Amino acid sequence: MTDIARVRAAAARLEGVARETPLLESPFLNEIAGRRLLVKAECLQLTGSFKFRGAWAALTALDEAERAQGVIAYSSGNHAQGVAHAAQLLGIRATILMPHDAPALKLANTRAYGAEVVTYRRGEESREAIGAGLANERGLTLIKPYDHPEVIAGQGTCGLELARQVRSAGVEAADVLVCTGGGGLAAGVALALEAEAPGLRVRPVEPEGWDDWRISLAAGRRLEAPGGESICDAIVTPAPGELTFPILSRLGGPGIAVSDDMALDAVAAAFGRLKIVAEPGGAVALAGALYRSEMLEGEAVVAVVTGGNVDPAMFRRALS
Amino acid sequence: MTDIARVRAAAARLEGVARETPLLESPFLNEIAGRRLLVKAECLQLTGSFKFRGAWAALTALDEAERAQGVIAYSSGNHAQGVAHAAQLLGIRATILMPHDAPALKLANTRAYGAEVVTYRRGEESREAIGAGLANERGLTLIKPYDHPEVIAGQGTCGLELARQVRSAGVEAADVLVCTGGGGLAAGVALALEAEAPGLRVRPVEPEGWDDWRISLAAGRRLEAPGGESICDAIVTPAPGELTFPILSRLGGPGIAVSDDMALDAVAAAFGRLKIVAEPGGAVALAGALYRSEMLEGEAVVAVVTGGNVDPAMFRRALS
Repeated sequence: MTDIARVRAAAARLEGVARETPLLESPFLNEIAGRRLLVKAECLQLTGSFKFRGAWAALTALDEAERAQGVIAYSSGNHAQGVAHAAQLLGIRATILMPHDAPALKLANTRAYGAEVVTYRRGEESREAIGAGLANERGLTLIKPYDHPEVIAGQGTCGLELARQVRSAGVEAADVLVCTGGGGLAAGVALALEAEAPGLRVRPVEPEGWDDWRISLAAGRRLEAPGGESICDAIVTPAPGELTFPILSRLGGPGIAVSDDMALDAVAAAFGRLKIVAEPGGAVALAGALYRSEMLEGEAVVAVVTGGNVDPAMFRRALS
Repeated sequence: MTDIARVRAAAARLEGVARETPLLESPFLNEIAGRRLLVKAECLQLTGSFKFRGAWAALTALDEAERAQGVIAYSSGNHAQGVAHAAQLLGIRATILMPHDAPALKLANTRAYGAEVVTYRRGEESREAIGAGLANERGLTLIKPYDHPEVIAGQGTCGLELARQVRSAGVEAADVLVCTGGGGLAAGVALALEAEAPGLRVRPVEPEGWDDWRISLAAGRRLEAPGGESICDAIVTPAPGELTFPILSRLGGPGIAVSDDMALDAVAAAFGRLKIVAEPGGAVALAGALYRSEMLEGEAVVAVVTGGNVDPAMFRRALS
């Protein structure tokens, strides 16, 4: 189980390793949002996404024998890079299972961080089955991308920073929009905010068609989203996590779904107004704050830009 | 005259107003640079460039009568936005003289920050003459872009942050590469480093053809560069400033010139590896660190990315 003590312990292990990412604001974006909009630029985290936090927290919680055997992870790319880089820094061997059509940059970077990348065909092969096979065969410890108590705790360290930074900006009450796939970040941040900034409330933001959190929170139980095409590769998970759902069910506000076009517009807005590079899946929370403001209340809103690992072609598309 | 006391006084006035911009690092960029490369992301400053610092420092040093009359500035765009936004926040009327062919984003933003923009034809009209005429006619105080003691002091606050951040990163000695037009930032940072981090030394980086600092520092007197076409609109000044030259002459290391192609490659590297948006003129220091490493010594180098106000078309070009 992940609780605030575990989040704080993860923060202590991440001290001096992960970056404290800045909280940004632009008068031009405030105008579009119709309220103050504070943006946590987690794309500036090591490896270009918040995933490094959870990966480091999970790997530093392993015992010596587990570290010596190595770890395995599956991911479309950001968790992959986070685990690969954390493992590299800790001298742990990492095997990463990635879809063969993951963004080229994410595949290349994961290899460049020293991991062995094994690809599988999304929709045809089961990554869980392949992963379990490799883990068994090689004695590897599986580092799940979100349903893992230490991963949730590590992502929660983003929330500890957020609580402090939002208060420094003079905001006591606001919705905190978080790009959400399996819910590791949203759940971790929710635990941190419950303890440190009770006026802030997490709300998951997802791509249309992959809004399983939105429908699950409304229904009070874990439901699958219909799926479909999406450019938000980082967060196209079909259903809320087992460990993350109870946390957000207790602490999270209603979910928000945004279109691919809104995500691309948010990528362009982050480029023009914040001077940060966001990937589409990392920009859906910003898209929610800017273009779904009818879903929001209050004088301020916070959005976490969760990742910036976008191929140049997709970025050029966002700017055109 | 600008000295460290004036820089510290400017820092006190900027406290809680300007952003402390992060110091970033990427193992991929370290590999290209052949040493540790620490990047100060000043493109994340308010208005998208370091210029806000100097503008705020200069405007907050005005007396009540001067504030009531208003200010004038000339600039290709970053000083323009810095002065316009600082003036807006302080309730001061700002008139900004800009070349008619400045990047569209910079023209639009300067107006959006509430300034009156007057355009002139670069190469045909003298901005100094037009500026002096308007200043006289309307009783405005001219806020020069670099040859201004308070502007230099304000830009120096970037150096105070840098000194602390670089030390926290475990680096005691390094060259600090700074994108340089008139030298306001480089001079201010040099004063800050002299006082706070004597192992760090500023070196100006400029576009080829506009490397007046490089030739002037080598000659020991202010010389004009030949000029020519450049995409680095932010830093195509023909000669070192009168106030900035003596400071860098005493404290700065040899200058470095980079090509437009190197600047574009650095924009792409900042996009891919640091997830920040740099404009070509704001990326020349990074270009120097990455692609002119034969000009460097030592185990570490620091580069200041000075601005991110780039039109989408130019950014797409950098990514293609």
